[in-house]
Amino acid sequence: MTHEPRLTPPLAKGHISVARLADYWYVALQSNELGPRRPVQRTVLGTPLALFRDGQGRPAALLDRCPHRNVPLSLGRIHEDGHLECRYHGWRFDTSGACRAIPGLCDGAPGRAHNATAYPVRERDGLVWVYMNPDAKEVRGEPFSFEERPGYTTVRGTIDMEASLHATLENILDVPHTAFLHRGLFRKEATTEIEAEVRRGPDRVEAEFIGEPRPPGIAARLLSPSGGTVEHTDRFILPSIAQVEYRLGEENHFLITQTLTPIGDHHTRIFADISFRLRIPGFVLRPLLTPVAWHILRQDAAILRAQTENVRRFGGEQFAHTSIDLLGRPIWRLLREAERGELRSLDGGTEAQRVRMTV
Amino acid sequence: MTHEPRLTPPLAKGHISVARLADYWYVALQSNELGPRRPVQRTVLGTPLALFRDGQGRPAALLDRCPHRNVPLSLGRIHEDGHLECRYHGWRFDTSGACRAIPGLCDGAPGRAHNATAYPVRERDGLVWVYMNPDAKEVRGEPFSFEERPGYTTVRGTIDMEASLHATLENILDVPHTAFLHRGLFRKEATTEIEAEVRRGPDRVEAEFIGEPRPPGIAARLLSPSGGTVEHTDRFILPSIAQVEYRLGEENHFLITQTLTPIGDHHTRIFADISFRLRIPGFVLRPLLTPVAWHILRQDAAILRAQTENVRRFGGEQFAHTSIDLLGRPIWRLLREAERGELRSLDGGTEAQRVRMTV
Amino acid sequence: MTHEPRLTPPLAKGHISVARLADYWYVALQSNELGPRRPVQRTVLGTPLALFRDGQGRPAALLDRCPHRNVPLSLGRIHEDGHLECRYHGWRFDTSGACRAIPGLCDGAPGRAHNATAYPVRERDGLVWVYMNPDAKEVRGEPFSFEERPGYTTVRGTIDMEASLHATLENILDVPHTAFLHRGLFRKEATTEIEAEVRRGPDRVEAEFIGEPRPPGIAARLLSPSGGTVEHTDRFILPSIAQVEYRLGEENHFLITQTLTPIGDHHTRIFADISFRLRIPGFVLRPLLTPVAWHILRQDAAILRAQTENVRRFGGEQFAHTSIDLLGRPIWRLLREAERGELRSLDGGTEAQRVRMTV
Repeated sequence: MTHEPRLTPPLAKGHISVARLADYWYVALQSNELGPRRPVQRTVLGTPLALFRDGQGRPAALLDRCPHRNVPLSLGRIHEDGHLECRYHGWRFDTSGACRAIPGLCDGAPGRAHNATAYPVRERDGLVWVYMNPDAKEVRGEPFSFEERPGYTTVRGTIDMEASLHATLENILDVPHTAFLHRGLFRKEATTEIEAEVRRGPDRVEAEFIGEPRPPGIAARLLSPSGGTVEHTDRFILPSIAQVEYRLGEENHFLITQTLTPIGDHHTRIFADISFRLRIPGFVLRPLLTPVAWHILRQDAAILRAQTENVRRFGGEQFAHTSIDLLGRPIWRLLREAERGELRSLDGGTEAQRVRMTV
Repeated sequence: MTHEPRLTPPLAKGHISVARLADYWYVALQSNELGPRRPVQRTVLGTPLALFRDGQGRPAALLDRCPHRNVPLSLGRIHEDGHLECRYHGWRFDTSGACRAIPGLCDGAPGRAHNATAYPVRERDGLVWVYMNPDAKEVRGEPFSFEERPGYTTVRGTIDMEASLHATLENILDVPHTAFLHRGLFRKEATTEIEAEVRRGPDRVEAEFIGEPRPPGIAARLLSPSGGTVEHTDRFILPSIAQVEYRLGEENHFLITQTLTPIGDHHTRIFADISFRLRIPGFVLRPLLTPVAWHILRQDAAILRAQTENVRRFGGEQFAHTSIDLLGRPIWRLLREAERGELRSLDGGTEAQRVRMTV
Repeated sequence: MTHEPRLTPPLAKGHISVARLADYWYVALQSNELGPRRPVQRTVLGTPLALFRDGQGRPAALLDRCPHRNVPLSLGRIHEDGHLECRYHGWRFDTSGACRAIPGLCDGAPGRAHNATAYPVRERDGLVWVYMNPDAKEVRGEPFSFEERPGYTTVRGTIDMEASLHATLENILDVPHTAFLHRGLFRKEATTEIEAEVRRGPDRVEAEFIGEPRPPGIAARLLSPSGGTVEHTDRFILPSIAQVEYRLGEENHFLITQTLTPIGDHHTRIFADISFRLRIPGFVLRPLLTPVAWHILRQDAAILRAQTENVRRFGGEQFAHTSIDLLGRPIWRLLREAERGELRSLDGGTEAQRVRMTV
């Protein structure tokens, strides 16, 4: 009846690689985005949350919907008693979601039916994490923890991708696209044959590149003017951490940890933490590196948006795979196993596989 | 297949309080909005209408779709014969919707298949009302009639709410929200315990507040500098009238009649008629009152829009009720009974119930 | 559950006249829109295509989706080897869609699973045509061919209509609307009774108007200052050609050929070719005619957009027909027969029918 444009003939399978892992921690926002006076709205896994701090400054996350008339609690304010007050009728909620006041009510007191839904929260490393199953009896594990790295320079930034968690992860941890999408900046077209070892662990999958020469692009020249052997590992850790680690010789170490938050099925926020220790002092490299990093991220954002639009336009993914698409499918299998609660036990060990490719 | 963001886990019941009462009169527009030359489009109950005046100035309302090729008749013009002429092929229709001319046609004459759909129309009190069942053999009742009130000052205005008819009615007739949403303007936080009597009549439900002190806000001080006992009743009349009536002593009388038109399921237009007779002359109060009234209405519009967005985002309402939500549920029951044609007979009487609350 | 505005009561049949004819040629773009360096995106029948020229300048059309990760190939570039290179990972495709390179791949070579989908292409008369069935073993017929007309002046233009192919065709080939939608420009209201003969051929349907006087509007006066008999035929040719032909006396000949491309179900692009040979020299008429033609086309675009919006708003068409709607229904029958592959054989002849009308 609606006759929306469809393809003639249909050309996609209807599958889109979207997994929704509720029993995990995600970054809702950075600590400095959450002040003492006003609640803040953030969306995680399609769920709008009202985040606020109580009288002691402790962060809390409630479902952003007042149980009374369903207006967003994030429109309210922090009452002087430290509870979150709804803007419409002034109902007040504590950090556990319990309703503590219903102004005007004479008969009876607030009960369970008047409570808001609360999500477990942790604040660490300057980030506020939310556990996305409010009904869980207990949380399973704690948020990802950044190691202390004395002597390292750290740069942080945030960027939004109009893409699924999986598409964003594959993009971040994919090597072959760098020579084309980031032509001239990062890698030249494939010249050297190397080997990659792909290893599956209980909660992770990683690819280590063996025999990789120093990349010839600008970014690499900034990193290591003298050349040398590269140790390079790309790593995914459940539910949404992507790490890229480079070592050049003994003194250069580069660790990019991207913590991803699935805002919606096709919208992912990246909290990036770039830590490095290099021959060149950090304060010299930092102003050179920042514009290059942003340029690369914008190119990735543009291609991911185009990919997402096309997948949605065609009604699903129709991907051809090759042996050098190292991590996309293993990450998808891990996400699907985790979503179904069927993570394979590997008897404490790992599975490994070797692939040849040119870089 | 589409993988639109959905909640994890789902959290709403899927119910939205939308009733569609066709066999009733609604205000389509104000008399002065409908001139002699051009038809005007208005939408009532999701139904686009082409309103126009014939040669004698009589208003008419046709479904805004030419029976020929379905273009909007409201794009046309009034022919010199007083009929509405379609812009595309010049077919002409009278106020009953009958097709009176098909230019170019030689064989045969316009027949029933060429007629437009017409809706009963009444013009009174400066408003054009439309009866939203075009198939009804006869109309049931006449439009709401404003009483003549000599010596009263009257102010009229129109505002659109992005909210259902029911959510808008509950907002207009709700007392507890005024201390919070309109903080400082209208009421302070609950201090006095009073009683409210909720009465159900055959076509209406109302709440009378007993023992209410003069509200302490600015608006109330403007209304009655000397204080005094308040008589206050909030009233809903089928299908879409909301009345708020205040008396302070013998000389102050304030009657706000809001006639609501459901444009769509989540879009309601308010035609407000504010009539008052006060100690203070009307011409003094009017310029003071108008900006305060608009400020209040804009606050209501903002919270209703936020409520509507959230209810739609969550896929339905999940409301918690309390004893001091006086009229929301009785209004909903009345709307549902009327929609199903099952209005309860009360044997000529009313049902009443008392509730304690602080105001 | 969603409670979108719907009509009370429902008023349409749910049918919309949309046919999707895949086994035919459509104009994708004009030759001069397709350069040697960059691919270009165009959409035909809801299908996005990446059009490009290879090293020899030959045009090609691939489905605008890389088989690898589904990004649009139209974001890529033409490699120095003349193949289309994907922007994301640099895969390269020739004009047949065959994958010719997968950078970085060591084990194995590109195979069938890595190929893009290609559509047959023809370039003629300054237009690039695409055959919209990529799976067809052989194409059925060749694109519509414009006759050479020495001594004729030709003007070309493109305009987009927010309307279905069928609604656009009916509008172009309909006579009665001209007196109303284009009031004053083209025809006056019906004064003379004439006859029209409607003829159905194997791949076409046309209406010839017999006894039509010279139209009295500005356009007609520009065309033929001296008056005279008119020969006028309106013609539809499968899948999407609309021709309007006028002769006034022996020296004036006016042939408007509009080649339509269904971009989507409710979005049609017109490639118009206006050829004429007149008493007045072409270079005199052309600057006068162009603004008039554009004015007419904009009026048609506005009414078609309003028709489309209304049909979609009401959920379908509810058309009343008359005997003077000459070509709308025969065109629809032809489109439906062609879509179902059931074009009636007419034993080499035609079917004809006469209708009286005033123009």
